[in-house]
Amino acid sequence: MVTILFSDRGIPKNYRQMHGFGSHTFKWVNREGTAHWIKYHFKTETGIANLSSEEAAQIGAQDPDYATRDLFQHIQGGGIAAWKAYVQIMSIDDADKYGTTPFDVTKVWLYKDYPLVPIGRLVLNKNPENFFAEIEQAAFSPANFVPGIEPSPDKLLQGRLFSYPDTQRHRLGANYALIPVNCPYSGKITNYQRDGAMRIDGNGAGQPNYSPNSRSGAVADSQRTEAPIVMHGNSERTEYPRANRADDFEQAGLLYRVLSEDERTRLVDNIARHMTGIDPDIQRRQIAHFTKADPEYGARIARKLNLASISSTDYR
Amino acid sequence: MVTILFSDRGIPKNYRQMHGFGSHTFKWVNREGTAHWIKYHFKTETGIANLSSEEAAQIGAQDPDYATRDLFQHIQGGGIAAWKAYVQIMSIDDADKYGTTPFDVTKVWLYKDYPLVPIGRLVLNKNPENFFAEIEQAAFSPANFVPGIEPSPDKLLQGRLFSYPDTQRHRLGANYALIPVNCPYSGKITNYQRDGAMRIDGNGAGQPNYSPNSRSGAVADSQRTEAPIVMHGNSERTEYPRANRADDFEQAGLLYRVLSEDERTRLVDNIARHMTGIDPDIQRRQIAHFTKADPEYGARIARKLNLASISSTDYR
Amino acid sequence: MVTILFSDRGIPKNYRQMHGFGSHTFKWVNREGTAHWIKYHFKTETGIANLSSEEAAQIGAQDPDYATRDLFQHIQGGGIAAWKAYVQIMSIDDADKYGTTPFDVTKVWLYKDYPLVPIGRLVLNKNPENFFAEIEQAAFSPANFVPGIEPSPDKLLQGRLFSYPDTQRHRLGANYALIPVNCPYSGKITNYQRDGAMRIDGNGAGQPNYSPNSRSGAVADSQRTEAPIVMHGNSERTEYPRANRADDFEQAGLLYRVLSEDERTRLVDNIARHMTGIDPDIQRRQIAHFTKADPEYGARIARKLNLASISSTDYR
Amino acid sequence: MVTILFSDRGIPKNYRQMHGFGSHTFKWVNREGTAHWIKYHFKTETGIANLSSEEAAQIGAQDPDYATRDLFQHIQGGGIAAWKAYVQIMSIDDADKYGTTPFDVTKVWLYKDYPLVPIGRLVLNKNPENFFAEIEQAAFSPANFVPGIEPSPDKLLQGRLFSYPDTQRHRLGANYALIPVNCPYSGKITNYQRDGAMRIDGNGAGQPNYSPNSRSGAVADSQRTEAPIVMHGNSERTEYPRANRADDFEQAGLLYRVLSEDERTRLVDNIARHMTGIDPDIQRRQIAHFTKADPEYGARIARKLNLASISSTDYR
Repeated sequence: MVTILFSDRGIPKNYRQMHGFGSHTFKWVNREGTAHWIKYHFKTETGIANLSSEEAAQIGAQDPDYATRDLFQHIQGGGIAAWKAYVQIMSIDDADKYGTTPFDVTKVWLYKDYPLVPIGRLVLNKNPENFFAEIEQAAFSPANFVPGIEPSPDKLLQGRLFSYPDTQRHRLGANYALIPVNCPYSGKITNYQRDGAMRIDGNGAGQPNYSPNSRSGAVADSQRTEAPIVMHGNSERTEYPRANRADDFEQAGLLYRVLSEDERTRLVDNIARHMTGIDPDIQRRQIAHFTKADPEYGARIARKLNLASISSTDYR
Repeated sequence: MVTILFSDRGIPKNYRQMHGFGSHTFKWVNREGTAHWIKYHFKTETGIANLSSEEAAQIGAQDPDYATRDLFQHIQGGGIAAWKAYVQIMSIDDADKYGTTPFDVTKVWLYKDYPLVPIGRLVLNKNPENFFAEIEQAAFSPANFVPGIEPSPDKLLQGRLFSYPDTQRHRLGANYALIPVNCPYSGKITNYQRDGAMRIDGNGAGQPNYSPNSRSGAVADSQRTEAPIVMHGNSERTEYPRANRADDFEQAGLLYRVLSEDERTRLVDNIARHMTGIDPDIQRRQIAHFTKADPEYGARIARKLNLASISSTDYR
Repeated sequence: MVTILFSDRGIPKNYRQMHGFGSHTFKWVNREGTAHWIKYHFKTETGIANLSSEEAAQIGAQDPDYATRDLFQHIQGGGIAAWKAYVQIMSIDDADKYGTTPFDVTKVWLYKDYPLVPIGRLVLNKNPENFFAEIEQAAFSPANFVPGIEPSPDKLLQGRLFSYPDTQRHRLGANYALIPVNCPYSGKITNYQRDGAMRIDGNGAGQPNYSPNSRSGAVADSQRTEAPIVMHGNSERTEYPRANRADDFEQAGLLYRVLSEDERTRLVDNIARHMTGIDPDIQRRQIAHFTKADPEYGARIARKLNLASISSTDYR
Repeated sequence: MVTILFSDRGIPKNYRQMHGFGSHTFKWVNREGTAHWIKYHFKTETGIANLSSEEAAQIGAQDPDYATRDLFQHIQGGGIAAWKAYVQIMSIDDADKYGTTPFDVTKVWLYKDYPLVPIGRLVLNKNPENFFAEIEQAAFSPANFVPGIEPSPDKLLQGRLFSYPDTQRHRLGANYALIPVNCPYSGKITNYQRDGAMRIDGNGAGQPNYSPNSRSGAVADSQRTEAPIVMHGNSERTEYPRANRADDFEQAGLLYRVLSEDERTRLVDNIARHMTGIDPDIQRRQIAHFTKADPEYGARIARKLNLASISSTDYR
């Protein structure tokens, strides 16, 4: 991620000309009940465009709202922002065999192993009428699922399944799902949620709010439960495992090596400029990371910072 | 208030058979713009009924929800709870002359000076359909006025004008007035209130929310401002004035002296029972208060507590 | 639990003359690292004493703070409240074999299978000096462990490990562990917790608050991590399993059958009195539960409520 | 204020080379009990230095923390930031006579009428050790007075006397005054404040928390009450009075006319640049304000925006 952020792609020209992807692995379950692991990708239909560091600094000084204004005015003028949506699909059996864990948010699935399968488009074609009502009150959460889409055991996703709605309850209130922008687009909701700050519907009137009940209350639809995930191993508290750490640098090295010489120069300049002024011991610790990704990568940053080369075995 | 609370009227038999009154003085302004001070009174149409201390203790042990259940079941069975509504009316000029200040919540206006003028009825004839939505979310406040009804300079009321809506903002949220039970019954509200937790309407869409504005926004109706109150004197921080303190006991004495012998006996017994076990020095300080209201009143309580009589000049 | 609550033991005479027990199963790990499951028991040293329903109603009417006052005055007068502390100990291997799950908070471990092993005393011998500071701010949590005591997989306990400190963060603030009554009694705490409302110590001054760090920050003591718990099975969302439900009533039946005829009479009277006035269909559903515990138990309550006997196979 | 903000002084070079002043009028009461109205001024000992708009934009793009870092590093290197402190002093009698109200935060008191009287220095010579503990938790409030310094009837100040501590109670908690950075520097506090989130002292132990009391509790020091302020007039809700509005532009015109030609050019350029792109009707409304301050001021901005001159009588 650090390598991408400091590369040319780290400063998109605007929100329309950049790709997107779901960091997490999700589970898709088809009509027959068969589950697969999938990753989402959104490819801009208008091509990627980036700013140089110098252009970005100048725009930031003059117009801090530049990217939001660009999107708003583009749509206000009748334009759209559009992405083609794809998934990568991995069978459950493959998950154990694939070299890097398919549930590690810091790893990509190589396109050659799992090609992009088109599934539709994501189109932005209408601006909000009121910023607070429709944007500031919006509660996006990876825990909002429709039947057929389910979470994976990705640890970061598992944490987010809880933490997104929990902070939304704190930020917006326990009844945030009753705010129009957060309501399901169609369909009537029947559940046993009652009370809480700002209950603005009938709150279930006189119906009981325990389940099951003998008063004709809503019954859970057992067809809609998630497919089970088989668990084995220890429940324990551990450090992040040391044994895998070489693996942590492999994909950063792959990325570095597909860059052109010009792109590498800008990447190295960009990183070195941000590391200027840092305590030399911390500089050396950080350069050891780049060296583990690719020896040239680390060596070029070290040279820019007037440091001797750092071996990838320093600072294990 | 202490004398009433420990008298027979201190334990109403239920919510239906008790009187009510607005503690505070309010201001009524008529069509010609003339202001008067008024006090509200609600007289039950079914007569007062009280419980003895012994009955109340027994009911409290067996059915702590007795009074609420009584009202709910009475209305559920087709009954009503009804009060005749009255006001006492004092001219602005009278206010300076009336012996006790008309803005002191601890004083009554004697009926012989300001007789009750009937203005209507208060009728409860429908139970809530959902307790949380309609009762727990209700936000009653003395600061909710309609044109023609305004506050008086009563200091306790002035504090409540702020503190009621402030605690409601804390308890229910900044948009508590959008909860159906708190919305005006009829009429469309146009104001410049925007944003806040749980904004569930359009939040003013794209309209400006500053005033005055040149974008056709709502304009304040200057016909609806409160009548001014003339102020004079010092703005300062003082102790409650000592000079008036004899006055604090006069109406308690009046009340004591209109009670029958039986009523006095029950009042004295009730107070003495609650004072049993208290540190004798605190008992004596409290008895001095009753003695200032009426020497017999204090003497009878002292005797019940096996204390020597307390002079009304003790513990000034 | 329902059977105990409505039995003679449901109304202790005071806090001193009643037993206590930790509902949850915990894990004890000895010096060799061997884990066992344990349950806590606290037996009053002064013997059990209970109130009848009638006595309790009368005391509740006259003195709602009776039990707290009793304990306070007893200690104030120089007395103590004391319990002998015991554990029941189950080996990890036994857990799979024991008939009822050892992690089900609704089940006891029979004393004949796992006898009480004495471990010490719990003694209350000092009243708080300030109720708010020492009582209202107290934050008890089953997640506060010392090395050697750890949680079990009991689902209710697992929920509480999170929910107790979470509500304490809400109730008292993120830094509730800095309130004197919640601080460790001895020992200096070194961790990376920083900031949060009401930070009243130095907040770590200029030390880094990430870990590991190269600035001599605190290092986790790997000797103090919990013993792992082996997991297997599915991660899924299910109803409470129907197959086990006969088991739900067995221990309630055992308890009923050890009661004397007098005790059964009071139990049945007590339950029937509380069920009076309930919708007969709900009465029948509830009586079916008692019948599953013991046919006589259900039949006697049905008779009291003037209902025909309910078979234990009704309302499955 | 708008004229100052868009003038050269609107972008100080750093926090050290800028003047400061207390917007509000305060009351000083001397040993004899005589009150005066005063205004605070802080004049930097190192002289004023400003940035041009272009310099500020460039620094903002490269180093958003520039001003904070400058101050921190200056002090870290052994430097100080220092201001000479002065007051302007107005007698109570003068207040009624002085042309602009002495309690209007948008007006200055001319130095020729009320010269600066030196009272001391304000020196910053030590950086915080922990940013959160000492800076983010700091609770500055105009309502924190020492004896002899008191508020004036300035309406904005009166609002702030309440709103500063109120938001601090919300932001930091009811006991924010117990956080070390907010505690009085010396002296032991004795008051009747009790309870509230994060009470980390003894909370008054067993002392009563009502006043006055017969248990030797703290007694208010009547020598320390504020000097009274004489009030007269109506308590009412009004629009800001129209009759005074010419007065609103006088001091802005004075300021414009003391600027050199170069300073006027930069002021006009700066304002016009920020008004570019605004709806022409709003531009005209705003230019009418500048014209009321000084006809040349408005005319030059209008010319820059390619608008015809606006008369000061437009948009009353």
